[in-house]
Amino acid sequence: MNREDRSEERPLGPSFGCPVGRADHAQILLGHGGGGLLTHRLLEQVFRPAFTNPLLDARHDGAVLTVGSERLAFTTDSYVVRPLFFPGGDIGTLAVNGTINDLTMCGARPLFLSVAFILEEGLPIEILYRVVASMRQAAQSAGVQIVTGDTKVVDRGKGDGLYINTAGVGLIMHGLTIAPTAIRPGDAVLLSGDIGRHGMAIMAVREGLEFETTIISDCAAVAEPVQELLTAGIEVHCLRDLTRGGLATALVEIAEAARLHIHLEETAIPIQEEVRGACEILGLDPLYVANEGRFVCFVPLAQKEAALDILRQYPVATDAHQIGEVREGTEGLVTIKGTLGTSRVLDMLSGEQLPRIC
Amino acid sequence: MNREDRSEERPLGPSFGCPVGRADHAQILLGHGGGGLLTHRLLEQVFRPAFTNPLLDARHDGAVLTVGSERLAFTTDSYVVRPLFFPGGDIGTLAVNGTINDLTMCGARPLFLSVAFILEEGLPIEILYRVVASMRQAAQSAGVQIVTGDTKVVDRGKGDGLYINTAGVGLIMHGLTIAPTAIRPGDAVLLSGDIGRHGMAIMAVREGLEFETTIISDCAAVAEPVQELLTAGIEVHCLRDLTRGGLATALVEIAEAARLHIHLEETAIPIQEEVRGACEILGLDPLYVANEGRFVCFVPLAQKEAALDILRQYPVATDAHQIGEVREGTEGLVTIKGTLGTSRVLDMLSGEQLPRIC
Repeated sequence: MNREDRSEERPLGPSFGCPVGRADHAQILLGHGGGGLLTHRLLEQVFRPAFTNPLLDARHDGAVLTVGSERLAFTTDSYVVRPLFFPGGDIGTLAVNGTINDLTMCGARPLFLSVAFILEEGLPIEILYRVVASMRQAAQSAGVQIVTGDTKVVDRGKGDGLYINTAGVGLIMHGLTIAPTAIRPGDAVLLSGDIGRHGMAIMAVREGLEFETTIISDCAAVAEPVQELLTAGIEVHCLRDLTRGGLATALVEIAEAARLHIHLEETAIPIQEEVRGACEILGLDPLYVANEGRFVCFVPLAQKEAALDILRQYPVATDAHQIGEVREGTEGLVTIKGTLGTSRVLDMLSGEQLPRIC
Repeated sequence: MNREDRSEERPLGPSFGCPVGRADHAQILLGHGGGGLLTHRLLEQVFRPAFTNPLLDARHDGAVLTVGSERLAFTTDSYVVRPLFFPGGDIGTLAVNGTINDLTMCGARPLFLSVAFILEEGLPIEILYRVVASMRQAAQSAGVQIVTGDTKVVDRGKGDGLYINTAGVGLIMHGLTIAPTAIRPGDAVLLSGDIGRHGMAIMAVREGLEFETTIISDCAAVAEPVQELLTAGIEVHCLRDLTRGGLATALVEIAEAARLHIHLEETAIPIQEEVRGACEILGLDPLYVANEGRFVCFVPLAQKEAALDILRQYPVATDAHQIGEVREGTEGLVTIKGTLGTSRVLDMLSGEQLPRIC
């Protein structure tokens, strides 16, 4: 987003004298939660005009705040994934790792999480136990503390088992500005590993697809390798985890915010054979499929090898590669050179590719 | 809660090797969200054994954290109130003021909020506009900034219009320990105003009760008078807002945590005539009805008048009074002298008195 002064009044919303924008639809659609174009429009048309302030940045994974003498990152996410349990994790793992990763993408060291449950009347306590145990384990592994919480219960039929919100606070211990607007022509675009596993693990369960190998979600915390990049003095320009909307949507958002051209090499992007197969069956493009333990990292070309050497030391990033570069050129464009050598433009995902993936 | 070392293993939970407790029920009941005994047991039996750490304090409205060189408060709440709009506010007002108040009750100056929406497919955008406008106004009035957010959409029939989570970060700028365990025999118990309006405003709408005067929720931010108490050097021992479970549940929790006796004078507790009438019709005790802009404050008796003089300068606390005192004596007991001069013991609300009140 741009950080210009937005204090001027926007067109009035219907009938209540508040400066809000106008939405394209009269009702909420599933696609408004998909992380693509509809989500983006809801932000731009409803939330941003109302919550006017320079810190609210829809194109970042969280807010970077100055509190007293410290720089903090602060972020929130609600989790509504279906099914609650999937190969490689569950809604609890996702809720802890997702918020840890959002703090990490702000360049912060994740420290503290809040957890708020919305439980549906009739939920077996056994399920809650299992989810809470996963959250405990994920938090312990990442060295973060769950310090405050809330529980609400809604009537039978007014929920879907359970929903979880986690918010997080992290400490920023470096002087870098890590943001889409900080990327520069010549930067290398590094990807931490193969893509599409989380989304296809969920879809395979939902659709009852059987493959020779079960697709395991990539759900994981990525704080450690990123902290190590920063500690080692790598001049990180931008970080982004590849959740809803996948690699393509993340890069389009970054390119648009930076008004630069990002060019990718499709052959450099690792995708498991099973993931590719499942995508073909379901007619999905893996570039748009959600991940929960993958990120891109923009660094100066001169530091590319040093950065990759660090990333590859960690199990969550052993397969890190350069997949593209930042170029001068057309504003906000992402292009990708395919396997046949021709290039095409990547757009933001419109609507909902995979509903309730996180 | 006590802050003893809880690192010893608890009885194993069913079948997954995590140290969790055992719940009294096999399924979630509406009462588990009511803020009374069932909520309390869920915390003690499921959440606390899993999320073992000294900062997680179920008997406080949030966590007090040291981050770098600063002391912060961090808190979260989800809001599932029905109906979404009620006299005196809506789910948006509630979500902003509720989290502001939780930060305030930690003795912090509220600074930043996150907002996460779970929207049900089919929700009219007009409703979202109105709620967002309320949130904007509540945040502006209280001088807090909404800095980060999230939106998820769930399938039609899997939500109830919209749910909101807000988390908050505030800065603690004094050296006091404000907690249930900090209250002392001789402390005056101050109440900021009349009780029971939020709960009865909601119930009156739900039950279609008609009174000569509409009951207006007391939903409001109470940060200003509390900040002024602290700035003026009042030695505040404990603060607690009187949400789910009402005045009685809050005081029972505090008395139990402090292992002291709190004695109240029923005649000193202001209750609007309409609220009293509605409670009688519905068979509810106003001492247990939820408020969203009322709090109790424990101060040394010598500072009682100074504290009341400050509180009464603010519209949200014009009717502040002393309603009781802290005494040596039976551990964790709350007694109340009624209008006929006899005393009775107040218990924690068991189960659900008013479902989905916030």
